[in-house]
Amino acid sequence: MIKVGIIGVGTVGTSVVQILKDNADIISARAGIDIVATRGVVKNLKKERAIELLLTDNVDDVLDDPEIDIVVELMGGVEEAFEVVKRALRNGKAVVTANKALLAYHRYELQEIAQDLAFEYEASVAGGIPIINALRDGLSANHIESILGIMNGTSNYMMTKMAKEGVAYEAILKEAQALGYAEADPTFDVGGFDAAHKLLILASIAYGIDAKPEDILIEGIDKVTQDDISFAQEFGYAIKLLGIAKKDGSEVELRVHASLISKDEMIAKIDGVMNAISVVGDKVGETLYYGPGAGGDATASAVVANIIDIARSGKSTPMLGFDKALKGKLTLKPADMIESKYYLRINVSDKTGVLARIAKIFEDNNISIETMLQRPASSDSANLLISTHTAVEKDIQKMIKEIAALDFVNSTPVMIRIV
Amino acid sequence: MIKVGIIGVGTVGTSVVQILKDNADIISARAGIDIVATRGVVKNLKKERAIELLLTDNVDDVLDDPEIDIVVELMGGVEEAFEVVKRALRNGKAVVTANKALLAYHRYELQEIAQDLAFEYEASVAGGIPIINALRDGLSANHIESILGIMNGTSNYMMTKMAKEGVAYEAILKEAQALGYAEADPTFDVGGFDAAHKLLILASIAYGIDAKPEDILIEGIDKVTQDDISFAQEFGYAIKLLGIAKKDGSEVELRVHASLISKDEMIAKIDGVMNAISVVGDKVGETLYYGPGAGGDATASAVVANIIDIARSGKSTPMLGFDKALKGKLTLKPADMIESKYYLRINVSDKTGVLARIAKIFEDNNISIETMLQRPASSDSANLLISTHTAVEKDIQKMIKEIAALDFVNSTPVMIRIV
Repeated sequence: MIKVGIIGVGTVGTSVVQILKDNADIISARAGIDIVATRGVVKNLKKERAIELLLTDNVDDVLDDPEIDIVVELMGGVEEAFEVVKRALRNGKAVVTANKALLAYHRYELQEIAQDLAFEYEASVAGGIPIINALRDGLSANHIESILGIMNGTSNYMMTKMAKEGVAYEAILKEAQALGYAEADPTFDVGGFDAAHKLLILASIAYGIDAKPEDILIEGIDKVTQDDISFAQEFGYAIKLLGIAKKDGSEVELRVHASLISKDEMIAKIDGVMNAISVVGDKVGETLYYGPGAGGDATASAVVANIIDIARSGKSTPMLGFDKALKGKLTLKPADMIESKYYLRINVSDKTGVLARIAKIFEDNNISIETMLQRPASSDSANLLISTHTAVEKDIQKMIKEIAALDFVNSTPVMIRIV
Repeated sequence: MIKVGIIGVGTVGTSVVQILKDNADIISARAGIDIVATRGVVKNLKKERAIELLLTDNVDDVLDDPEIDIVVELMGGVEEAFEVVKRALRNGKAVVTANKALLAYHRYELQEIAQDLAFEYEASVAGGIPIINALRDGLSANHIESILGIMNGTSNYMMTKMAKEGVAYEAILKEAQALGYAEADPTFDVGGFDAAHKLLILASIAYGIDAKPEDILIEGIDKVTQDDISFAQEFGYAIKLLGIAKKDGSEVELRVHASLISKDEMIAKIDGVMNAISVVGDKVGETLYYGPGAGGDATASAVVANIIDIARSGKSTPMLGFDKALKGKLTLKPADMIESKYYLRINVSDKTGVLARIAKIFEDNNISIETMLQRPASSDSANLLISTHTAVEKDIQKMIKEIAALDFVNSTPVMIRIV
C-alpha cells in the first residue's frame, strides 16, 4: 500500500482525498497497488471539513512520518512551500505539487535536490490537462519550436464574454468575480502573472531555459476595450491572453500578453474558462491540448495521476525532462528585441492633419502600417486603429512614447501584439 | 548507448532514423543516454533509400542481435508482425510499434507476453498526438465516461471539403486520392475500419474491454451527400466520422460511424486532415487532444518518444495501463442496443399522403420525430430529412426496413446517428 500525506487541505486537497476514495477501484487496478491518503496538514483544526482524513496542524506529522511515501504539497506560496518540499525530499519521500509559484521560482533547485526521488507537478500547469506529460514525454523526440497557450481561464472567460456579448471590461470583471472565476483582487489572473508562472514551467521542459517571472514580458488584458474587439472581428482576429514561448536560433522569447490571433487558429476557437496549449515541434508539427485549467476535481485529477505514476514506477522521468546537458544552452531573448506585428489604438482630437502627422511618425520610426481604421470616439475625438507589419518591440515602444507626447493625442496609445 | 533495430523501413521507418540523427542532441539530453538506430530490415535490399542505416532482408539479423535493445516494428499487417514482436520479446528486447491492426487483434496477448519488458505503441493511435500517454498516464485517476474522436484524417478531410465547398463525395474522394490522402481502395479509411482499430486500442486502456473489429458497429462516410450536409448546417451540426466509446453502467458501447455533432462542440471545429480526440473523465471533465494523425515525421515523433521513454526508465507503466484486475469487468454493449438520436434521409415519390404514411410508421415504431424538412430531389421525388429523439438502434433498423419496403420510397433510407 502507498501512503500519501497532504499538506494543505483546501479545495484541491479535499478533491484529492475524495478521488482516492471514490475511484479506489480503478486507481489500484492502474497503479497495481492500493493508494491511501493517511494524513492531512491544515492551519485551522477547528474548521469543519467534509472529508474523512486524520488531520494535524503540525507539518512534521507528515514530513517525519516514516510510513508516508508521497507528500502532496498544496499549501501554496513560495518560500514556505519550498522549505516543506525540501524537507520531504531529504526525508526520502516522493513529492507531488500543484504549486506553480513554487516552480516558477525554484524548479531548477528542486530538480537538483530531488535527484533519484520522484518530484511531479502535472497540476501546476493548466489544471486537468496533462500538458507536462505531453511535453516532457509525448513530444520528447522534438525540438520545440513554440508553445502558445491560453493558460488562464479567468482571462479567457472575460475575453470570450467581451467578444460575444459586447459588454465592457469592467462589467465582465464584476460578473466573473460574482461567479467565483475572478478574485476580489484580480491582478494575478488578468495581469498575466498566473499565466507567466505556467509558461516558465513549460519553457523549462521545452528549452531548459532558466528565468523568473520578473525576467520576462508580462502584460494583462485590462486595457482591452470594445473598440479593440470590433477591430479584431473586422480583420478576422480573436483577442486572447496568451503565454508564448518561441525559439529563435539560440534564443528563446517568453512573454504573456493580450494577443490578436487569427480566427482560423485552433487557439482562437477556445472559449470560456477553458485552457488550451498549442505546441509546435520540429518533427510532429502542431499538437494542441484542451481542457479545464482550474477547479478542485480537475486539478486533483492531475495530482492523483502523478501519485499513480509514482506508485507504478517510482521515478520514471527526470523532473524537467532532461539531464543537466540541456540547461543554459539557450538564452532568454531580451524583451525589447522581440519581433511581432502590432495593433495600436490611438485616441486623437478630431482635427485636420492629425492622420498625416501620425503616419509620418510611423514612417520616421521605420514602422510599416498594414491596416488603418478611423472610428469616432466622442464628439471631438477619434480612435485610430492601426496594425503594423513586423517590427521590433523597442522601436514600437519608442514610437508609442513619441505619439503619447503629441498635443492632439489624448492618452497613451494602447498596443496589442498580433500573433 | 541504446541500440535500435527497425523492422520495416518505409516512410515512418525512414523518419525514425532521420529524427534519431537530426535530433540526437536533444534526444540524448532527454533520455540521459545516446540512442542509435543500428539495423533496418527491408524486403527489397536493391531499392534505393535516402538513409544511412545498415540494412538486411533477414529479420533474424535484428531479432537475434544481442546488441539491439529495442525493436521497432513498422512492417504492418497482423499475423506476421505478431510473430516478429513475440520473438523480439522472447529475446528480451523492448518493442515499439505503430501497428494498429496488430493491436486491434492481439493487444491482450501482447500484454501477457511482454510481462516486465516495455511494449509501447503511442504511434498506433492518432499519429503524432500523445493520446496513449494522456489516457494511460495523464488521466489515470478517472473513470473514463467517454472517448469521442476524429481518428481518421482522410475522412475528416473529405467531410470538411464537402461542408466548406459544397462538392459531391465522389469528387472529393478523387481529389483526396490525387493528394495522397486516400488510397486507390479507400475502404479502410472511409469505411471506418482504420478508426475502429484505433478506438479498440483506446477502449482497452480506458475500460479493459476486449473486443475485435468484427465485434463492433463500424460504418463509413460513403453515403453522406450534400443534402445531409445542408440539413446539418441548417440545424447547427457538423458531420464527422467519429470513433465513440461510452460507458453505460457495466457496459461499454463501441462504434465508428458518420455522426451529426453540434457545431459548438470542439470536435466539430476540427477541420482538414487533422485528428482530435475528446476524453471525458468522471473527475477531470472533458479534455481534448488535437494534432496530425498521420505522416512520416509526425508518426515517427511518437515512435521516438516511446524509444526515449524506454531509454529513460525501461518499463514504467503496464502496457494497457492496468493489471489484470480491470480486464473483463465491463462488457460490450450489443450494437443493436445502442441508444442515439438519429437523422434519416428518405427519398420518396412526390405524391399526396406520403408524409402522413411515413409519420405513421414512426409513430407505430414508437420513434419520436424532432425535426422534419422536405426538399425536392427531382421533378417527381422529394427527400424527407428527419431527426428523431433518442431511440434504440434495433428499433430504428426495423423501421428503416419497413420504410424501404414501401412502394413510394425510392431507395433504402440513409441514416446518420446524432451524437
